[in-house]
Parts: sequence; structure tokens; C-alpha cells
Amino acid sequence: MFSVRIERLTSSLIRELLALTQQPDVISFAGGLPAREAMPPLDLRELPASLSQYGTTDGEPELRETIARQLTGIGLRVPPERVLITSGSQQGLDLVTKLFIDPDTPVAVEAPSYLAALQAFRFFGARMLELPLTPQGIDPQQLRELIRRERPAFVYLIPTFQNPSGVCYAESHRAGVAEVLRETGVALLEDEPYRELMYEAVDRTPLSGRLGGAPWMYMGSFSKTGIPGLRIGFIAASDDIHPHLVRIKQCTDLHTNRIGQWWCNRFLLDGDYLAHLDRLRAFYREKRDAMQAGLERHLGELATWSQPHGGLFFWVRLRQEVDERALLERALARKVAFMPGGAFYAHPPAFQGQMRLNFSLSTPEQIDRGLRMLGEVIRAYHAEAEARRSWPVAHVR
Amino acid sequence: MFSVRIERLTSSLIRELLALTQQPDVISFAGGLPAREAMPPLDLRELPASLSQYGTTDGEPELRETIARQLTGIGLRVPPERVLITSGSQQGLDLVTKLFIDPDTPVAVEAPSYLAALQAFRFFGARMLELPLTPQGIDPQQLRELIRRERPAFVYLIPTFQNPSGVCYAESHRAGVAEVLRETGVALLEDEPYRELMYEAVDRTPLSGRLGGAPWMYMGSFSKTGIPGLRIGFIAASDDIHPHLVRIKQCTDLHTNRIGQWWCNRFLLDGDYLAHLDRLRAFYREKRDAMQAGLERHLGELATWSQPHGGLFFWVRLRQEVDERALLERALARKVAFMPGGAFYAHPPAFQGQMRLNFSLSTPEQIDRGLRMLGEVIRAYHAEAEARRSWPVAHVR
Repeated sequence: MFSVRIERLTSSLIRELLALTQQPDVISFAGGLPAREAMPPLDLRELPASLSQYGTTDGEPELRETIARQLTGIGLRVPPERVLITSGSQQGLDLVTKLFIDPDTPVAVEAPSYLAALQAFRFFGARMLELPLTPQGIDPQQLRELIRRERPAFVYLIPTFQNPSGVCYAESHRAGVAEVLRETGVALLEDEPYRELMYEAVDRTPLSGRLGGAPWMYMGSFSKTGIPGLRIGFIAASDDIHPHLVRIKQCTDLHTNRIGQWWCNRFLLDGDYLAHLDRLRAFYREKRDAMQAGLERHLGELATWSQPHGGLFFWVRLRQEVDERALLERALARKVAFMPGGAFYAHPPAFQGQMRLNFSLSTPEQIDRGLRMLGEVIRAYHAEAEARRSWPVAHVR
Repeated sequence: MFSVRIERLTSSLIRELLALTQQPDVISFAGGLPAREAMPPLDLRELPASLSQYGTTDGEPELRETIARQLTGIGLRVPPERVLITSGSQQGLDLVTKLFIDPDTPVAVEAPSYLAALQAFRFFGARMLELPLTPQGIDPQQLRELIRRERPAFVYLIPTFQNPSGVCYAESHRAGVAEVLRETGVALLEDEPYRELMYEAVDRTPLSGRLGGAPWMYMGSFSKTGIPGLRIGFIAASDDIHPHLVRIKQCTDLHTNRIGQWWCNRFLLDGDYLAHLDRLRAFYREKRDAMQAGLERHLGELATWSQPHGGLFFWVRLRQEVDERALLERALARKVAFMPGGAFYAHPPAFQGQMRLNFSLSTPEQIDRGLRMLGEVIRAYHAEAEARRSWPVAHVR
């Protein structure tokens, strides 16, 4: 009765987990929501009545212009006519998927990568090709070889404060990756929802601005700095791609809600915008520091990680292998939650024992307490595993 | 570089036309927008701050409950758990398309039918099977034969004040179609954006409520009675279908904007809601009556039509064939616009000479003046065609 695509739609682990972590007494490092207390006020008093009518598929001209100006300011020259407003940046992924992916279309992704992007690509039957992520980004030479071998339809990258790994590409890797794309002409999909959540100054120049004539798409979001409940994102693109995205969006939901677009434009133009970003960064930096301290205190001997310079996540690799789902079940029994690392790979990695830890929703005190419990759970798990290895005969019975 | 699907994405005639009819001195019967002066006020003063956070994919529980109660009241028993809020009812079409349509999947549609639905189905490669629409609806016996022959994945119907035809299915045809679907078990997609825009009391019982165990989906919208700029619609479905739609929506845009959902729930529960519907009906009924009178006055000898009991459109069939695009060009030269009927068919009909005329955006005076010009344009077209037929030799030179 249904399309073949439905068989590729696996239930989201995040969804199942979020259901389990709704109880207020769970310390959850599993989700990725921004903190509500850090969101700007939603002031809609001056909303013009004209916005009640249907709008255009491309989006409100004022907001497109503001975004184009900001992008140009960060090194990505684009006219307002090539900015398309989307219903959250998740919709950008849906539009790109429809534009590029047939069953078995090769797509290059980071390993690990954003779960909901992998799901969207997989849903349409993409054959996903993984590029291992290092602390400096993907290796340009590996990208070049993958392109030579497989010629992917596009390369999906989250170069700035990546979800889940927290990695921010080094300037050398930004330049190297851009060079490979420029030379090969393979399209880039650059996804930057976290770029404004920066806790130390680092290079964040978009790759999309350095590609010469190669095709590119650049997605941004107002859900991490502004108000996620409004569902406003955008996708800017090179002129060979943009018109197709607009026509696909028209088929998808006609246009994005205008109230949210109006609010986002006011938010970006408000005199308090930069001060709001500063407050937001200070707010999350404190939590980031609390998690760094808690990890050193409670998981220092158990795991390795890099302190992220932005975003909302730590990516933690245990020194000893574990069954991630089994560890999660034990953690949930102690009312602490994390995201198993395996969920973020297109293909299950050989090593089991990675975790994504979110710090935006807990207080510094909860972060310390949650990590202490997590440390205890991991130690107990290892001890039991050790015990099983020591008395194998008992387990044969 | 792109998916095969992109080749099926024809540019929308409505889009091209709307661009031409933006000038204020054009009398446009081409669009389908509701009138802004008839929209309720967008009062957001009491919006709770908690709605700033991300929401659930299914939608706001309060709105789902209100919708479920209303549906049950009109004869479609459904629990709130099976109501999914969508980003406009266009998104419902996108979700259903993803759920059902692979290349060459057969889908049964009315002829004529809603243009943007045909585009969405075609985009995913559906093989569309047309069921001719009569003033009472599609013929149940033809549906039965089509199902026996082709077994479509679903049947897409707009039984109440259809766009473009204005047809409202007679009770006999509602019962007959429901019986065929119940017996064959083929899924129904019932689309009812216009049901509240009723100008005379007629039977409007949803077909979805009479299908026994057969699968169904029922879409509704707040864009015709409420505020289209908010982009809020819904799709209720039988229990074998609903969970898939939710998972697809999660991949598509995570969830629908919460501000619009909150407003829609308040709108439906407001003590003034029924009085607002009455005012809206009186407002559009006057325009409908003006169009009926204008058609009698200026196109009485040129065309046939049925006065619609609801919705926003007249469907007019010329007595003599014309080239619809050529006629449209002449009408536009006189600053009057209509939608050529051929655009609303999955397959071009044998007879050219149908028009969809919208009455919601013009005043009664504009309606009369526009129809007078349209009558003149049609008469001039026929006279020229006649002249060409009388002197064929002159044209051979």
C-alpha cells in the first residue's frame, strides 16, 4: 500500500528518548534544545495586519534582504533574490533532498553527522558515503579521493560547532575543502545552525563563499539564537540551484508563516541584537565550562574529549568499548540521559562507546551531579564486563 | 546533477499569472486568495511565553483536541491522537505524497482537480487516473471500475465546494463513493479547505466518516476562514496511516509553528467563531451573487455554468471552443484575468474552453465590469475565428 521509501523510515532514537526524559527529575544530556530562559522576548505588538494574507513562496522581502546583508558581511556574497526562507532549517534539508536524491544517489556526509539530516537523506534512498571527522574537520585529500571514486551529488558539511561533535573546521581545512569543491565542481550543502553560539573567537568563514563557480547551498536558522517555536530558517544558494528550491518549496507548503518572518527581521535589525548574542554566549559558556569541569572531575580517566568552542554539545569517547544502548538503559535507571554516539553515523562505526552530551538545558549544579552519576554508571558497567571476562565458565551454563 | 523528479516539476501557471495580475488596475478572477477585509483580527496579546520553545511534531494538544471534537461533531469520529497539525494543508499533500507515491504509482483524481495537488503527485511520479466530475460528484460506478482495473494507491477527492469546479457532492454520490471505498478498501484522501464557506444549506457529511475499516485521510485548513499567513492546517487519518504521517512530518520540518497553532485554537473556541462564519458567508455570498448576475448579463449566451453553493469559484464552460491561452492573453490586454480550465486537469481535456472565475477579491462593481469585458473579449475572439473560417483562401497565401 505504501511507497518503498517508507521502509527506510526508521523511528528516531531521539524521539523515543525524549519521551523517556520528559519527567522533571531526569538530568538529560540527551536533547539539543536551547534554553528557554535565554530566548529573546516574543514581542508582536507592532505586527502589520497585512501579514494575515498569503505570502510569497520565497519569503518576506525585508527578511531576505537583511539575511543577504548579514551573509555578505561574513564572507558569503549573495543577493536577496537568492535567499529562500524555510519553515525551519529542517525544511531546507527536505527541499535539498527532493532536488538531488533518487534511490542510490551518492551523498557525502561527515562521520558523525546530524541525525535528522541522515534520516532525511536515507528516507529518499541516498547511498551515504562517510568522511571521518577530525578535530580540524574532514581531510581534504580524503574528500578528493571520495569524489574521484564516487562523484556524490553533494557534500553535506556542518563546519562550525558541528552537531554532534562540536568540531569547528580549522582555517587550513576550510581552505583545503573549498579548493577540492572548486576544482571538482561538486555541490556543497553547508549547514550552520550553531555559528552564533561561539564561546571563544575562532575562524568561521563560510566555505560557500570560496567556491568560485561551483554550486553551493548555505542553510541558517533562528532557532538557536531566536525563537525555535516560530520555525524560521533559510537557505541561500548559487543561481543554478536557487530557482529549483523555490519551485519545490511551492509544492511543499506554499510559503513559510509570515508572523515568524516579520519577528526574525525585527530581531536581526534590533539595536539589542549583538548584546543579546553576547548575553547568550555568556549564558551557554558558563554551562559549557561546567561540563568541561564535570567531565574532568568524573570521567577524566574513563574518556577523552575536546572542549568545544561553540555549539551546544560535547562529544565524548570512552577509553573502553561498551554497548551504547545497554549503557543508556543503566543511565536512565539512574535518571541521567545521554545520546549514544552510534546514532549519528550513516553506517554503524566499528567502535561502540561514544556519547553526545548536551549542556544547554541543565544548571551547572545538575551538570556536575549528572556527570558524577554517569561516571558511576560507566565504572559499574566496566566492572561487570570485567567480571564476566574473568569467569567465562559461569556464563556458559 | 539533479534527481529525475525535477524534470517533472513544471512551472506553475498560477505563479506566472499572479505576477501579471499584481498591478492594481487589473480585475483578477484568476487567483484564489480569501479577502483580507473578511479575516478575523490577529490578536496575540495573551500568547504564553512557553510557546517560544520547540514543540511536538504532532502539534499542540489543545488544538488537536478542539479539531477532533469539531470533526466528531460533523460526523467524522476521530480521537485527538490521530489529528496531525500541518504547515498549511499543502503540507498534508506533501506528506501523503511521500507516504504513498513511487514513480508510476496509480492515483485517482477528479477531473478537474486542485492544481497544486496534481503538481505534488506528479512531482513524485504518480500515474494519474482521472474521474470526470459531474455536478453531483464523481460517478461511483466509474470509481468501482477504475479501482478494479488499476487499484490506485488512494483516491483524492474534494467533495465540498471543490476547487476549481465549485461542485458539492450530492448525498447519493457521497453514499455511493463511500460504499465503493468501503468494499474495495482503497484509501481516501478527502480535502476540505472550503467546507465552511457555505452560502446555502447543503449536505456536507465527510466521506471519511463512513468508510468502516477502509483507510482514510481528511485534510482541513484555517486559511479560508482564519488567517492564511499563519500557515496552519491539519490531517486526520485512520490508525494504519497516522503514525507514518507523523514520522514523515518529523523529517520534513520537525513541527508546525506554535504561535499560529495557539491562535487557531483560540479562534475555534472563541464565542464569536460562529458569528464570524456567518459574517464571512454573507460577505462572500454577496460577491457570489454578483458574479452569478454578471455572468447572466454578459456571458449568458456564450457559456454554461452552475451557481456554486459555497467556495470561492465559478466554473464556466464556453459553448464554443477556444484556445484558452490565447483567450487569456487577450483578456490580460484588457486588464481582466481568469484561470484557463485546462490547467486543472492531470491530462489535457479534449475540449478547450473552460475557465475558473474567482469572486473573493473583487467588489460587486468590479465583478460586473470584469465580466462585461470578458464577454466582449470572448465575442471578439469568436468573431475573428469565424472570419478565419469564412475566408480560408486568404490565409493560405
